[in-house]
Amino acid sequence: MAKTVDLNADMGESFGPWVMGNDAAVLDIVTSANIACGFHAGDADVMARTFRMALEKGVGVGAHPGFADVQGFGRRRISLSSEELANLVTYQLGAAQAMARAAGGELRHLKLHGALANMASEDIEMARTCYAAAEKVQPGIVIMTLAGTAQEAAAEALGLNRAGEIFADRAYNDDATLVDRKLPGAVIHDAALAGPRITEMVKEGAIITANGKRIPTRIDTICLHGDTPEAIDIAASVRDSLTAAGISLKKL
Amino acid sequence: MAKTVDLNADMGESFGPWVMGNDAAVLDIVTSANIACGFHAGDADVMARTFRMALEKGVGVGAHPGFADVQGFGRRRISLSSEELANLVTYQLGAAQAMARAAGGELRHLKLHGALANMASEDIEMARTCYAAAEKVQPGIVIMTLAGTAQEAAAEALGLNRAGEIFADRAYNDDATLVDRKLPGAVIHDAALAGPRITEMVKEGAIITANGKRIPTRIDTICLHGDTPEAIDIAASVRDSLTAAGISLKKL
Amino acid sequence: MAKTVDLNADMGESFGPWVMGNDAAVLDIVTSANIACGFHAGDADVMARTFRMALEKGVGVGAHPGFADVQGFGRRRISLSSEELANLVTYQLGAAQAMARAAGGELRHLKLHGALANMASEDIEMARTCYAAAEKVQPGIVIMTLAGTAQEAAAEALGLNRAGEIFADRAYNDDATLVDRKLPGAVIHDAALAGPRITEMVKEGAIITANGKRIPTRIDTICLHGDTPEAIDIAASVRDSLTAAGISLKKL
Amino acid sequence: MAKTVDLNADMGESFGPWVMGNDAAVLDIVTSANIACGFHAGDADVMARTFRMALEKGVGVGAHPGFADVQGFGRRRISLSSEELANLVTYQLGAAQAMARAAGGELRHLKLHGALANMASEDIEMARTCYAAAEKVQPGIVIMTLAGTAQEAAAEALGLNRAGEIFADRAYNDDATLVDRKLPGAVIHDAALAGPRITEMVKEGAIITANGKRIPTRIDTICLHGDTPEAIDIAASVRDSLTAAGISLKKL
Repeated sequence: MAKTVDLNADMGESFGPWVMGNDAAVLDIVTSANIACGFHAGDADVMARTFRMALEKGVGVGAHPGFADVQGFGRRRISLSSEELANLVTYQLGAAQAMARAAGGELRHLKLHGALANMASEDIEMARTCYAAAEKVQPGIVIMTLAGTAQEAAAEALGLNRAGEIFADRAYNDDATLVDRKLPGAVIHDAALAGPRITEMVKEGAIITANGKRIPTRIDTICLHGDTPEAIDIAASVRDSLTAAGISLKKL
Repeated sequence: MAKTVDLNADMGESFGPWVMGNDAAVLDIVTSANIACGFHAGDADVMARTFRMALEKGVGVGAHPGFADVQGFGRRRISLSSEELANLVTYQLGAAQAMARAAGGELRHLKLHGALANMASEDIEMARTCYAAAEKVQPGIVIMTLAGTAQEAAAEALGLNRAGEIFADRAYNDDATLVDRKLPGAVIHDAALAGPRITEMVKEGAIITANGKRIPTRIDTICLHGDTPEAIDIAASVRDSLTAAGISLKKL
Repeated sequence: MAKTVDLNADMGESFGPWVMGNDAAVLDIVTSANIACGFHAGDADVMARTFRMALEKGVGVGAHPGFADVQGFGRRRISLSSEELANLVTYQLGAAQAMARAAGGELRHLKLHGALANMASEDIEMARTCYAAAEKVQPGIVIMTLAGTAQEAAAEALGLNRAGEIFADRAYNDDATLVDRKLPGAVIHDAALAGPRITEMVKEGAIITANGKRIPTRIDTICLHGDTPEAIDIAASVRDSLTAAGISLKKL
Repeated sequence: MAKTVDLNADMGESFGPWVMGNDAAVLDIVTSANIACGFHAGDADVMARTFRMALEKGVGVGAHPGFADVQGFGRRRISLSSEELANLVTYQLGAAQAMARAAGGELRHLKLHGALANMASEDIEMARTCYAAAEKVQPGIVIMTLAGTAQEAAAEALGLNRAGEIFADRAYNDDATLVDRKLPGAVIHDAALAGPRITEMVKEGAIITANGKRIPTRIDTICLHGDTPEAIDIAASVRDSLTAAGISLKKL
């Protein structure tokens, strides 16, 4: 049976007069767009434009909620109660649903952003709270969960519809954690390497660590970046390499 | 056939640590709650609590979007393009839908807030833009439109499901506009007067002006306030007087 | 020589249409006002009113900066770099200086708010960063430092002009930390007790712990609250008791 | 006697993770920097970096306050009372003073931003309110006033220290207003033209209109832009042309 995989990237991260990334270029590569929901980036006008553009290009649209911290771009850890967390996700997911609908589509997935995602990777209770809130607002929504983290465990425990995710441009340790950014080789900068490496992982259904170890993992979607020209080259390389290997790219 | 009417009030206008109004008391009087959506008041936590409380009391819940201006409480006029206006409404309406759903209910209506409502009362294009955005997100949603204003004309022109609204505590001029707040008698402060006056209007299906003139008007809902003890007395008087006259109170 | 002490309270914590506390009543009791600077509470209009009122009543005015989190009232911990922390304090202190000047006065002191204060009580580096930033903007400004915390150590290490502070309504452990709020007796609710207890501490120049132990401490100012009628009663009791004991109340 | 003139540009208009303009390049051209104060752009961290960089390059630093509207970049008109306007300016000016001081310098001037500037160009009362607030916080501060507008009249009426300003890249009508942006030739795009044109105006002490008419005007400073490579070319052309004509460039 033919393998398929999804390619996702964050987008809609402009704000007011400030532009971030090259969403049009990224939308020609990915099959799913994680669209910022106004709390860390992406005001209502940016959202409207981004949902419209993604839907026009046939890309699957998802909500990408983060902490309420525009200046910090949602990258600062903020301590919230469970109830506050649930409300944070509910609110942003609803706004994204309406934006999708106004653009003629429907939300397909949810992916947490920045510090919120990092904290949910470490803390299963936080992840459960966020995901349960999303499921309540849109039953059956696909939750993107980072391989080997508490995100995965939380979505499994709740029996949610989830998509296992790996990074296109990060090296993995033998315990499936990411190699520390400070170490050499932690981030893949070479587009020529990135494509074949990910293709091998998808074909094998396993993370291949920096040491060459195989860790069997559910790989439904691959996280790409589009914030630099280099990142777009890597994204294109991943897309081309997968396609050349006969793996179909398909939104969630 | 027995007459019915809806009683509505704005609520969920607290923010963070700051409390406004007495929502619990008002919810025992009204049949519809216009719940602030986070842009001028009512953060996600306040929204969650307010939707829950309103639904528990069997009150109909609606979105009450305003300009993005917490400090100004949405009372300052801000010039936006049509597209920005539509996105402003879409975003807040979606957030409110999700909050309603998380609390186990569904939105029934939309009412514009503050300066946004005032501008839409004067400018039919603005009203059309806001209402068309709402209809796109939730087809068939009831639009509360202020009697005798461009709000009414816009909802009619778009063929929307609308509820005609009058104020419980404001005197009317002979052209159906409100008596200027600076003039004596513009605001009704006497609860004993307020109830019978509104009851008469509902029975006659007409605004009764300060001069006693009758202006036939569709009266589906009556706007009450709950921000002061006096306002709550007036609200209770309206409720009691209508009920005593055999008019049933029913959410939209 | 006659003893003197300062009484301080947070104020200017309203925001937009929302009122918090009873600043007018508190200003009749305290000698120093810690005025919120717009990041966690107290927008520019609230600040202007509060500085004016405090200066009219002859009360010393200080800046009370917090994290940029209006919804969370500055009570949520946010992780910032040292540079971000310094800039946060610099910005708010400058705004407060201008507001003081516009009202015809000058800032006398700085006191950190909420989670920022709590973190600076535990982390001497954070406290140093905040205080050094303040000293750079207004050399010689008095820093209010909580007795027995890293705030104190940081201000000492930097050789700053500091005022040692104790709480009027909190019980102390034998190591000078506060009794956990969850334990009985942690918070003093009885105005009749509060005054004599603080008077004794000021006279002895020592914290008197829940067990009766004396911990010699520099007590320059006493932190009062004004957010409830009970708090105002306690504040008044502290003032009356100190005055009756011949201790003069004097701003920093 | 040798003529001198100041060259100014807006900067520090990045926000959080979003970069706007090329401040480093512009600072090599101008003699005065109008630095955003956090309300429409330029958070505390951006301000700190911008003040430091401008002072290191010997450029004069000024406050550039705008409406509290980050998403709208201060370009939307917002109706405020006189008191609110004064507080808006006071707050931002104070924050900028502290940032200047933390970077080892002092504010020299104030220039209003965006919709606030546009409204103050039309409404002398608004301009007076803003300028009087600034003078109260920093007596003697130089106010940049746009030639031929109510800004100029307000600063004159208040007897303030003002600097008359013209645009480097806009054509003028015979009544000293700007040619409407929709008309051909309204904006100068040709760097080769821009320099000599401004040099002639400075030498003659007059605005030269599109029709060639001379309107005698006090020209103390020339407004440059740095948001596009073209704008930087124009700015450099103005600088080179003035210098070649023996006019010295000097901060206010």
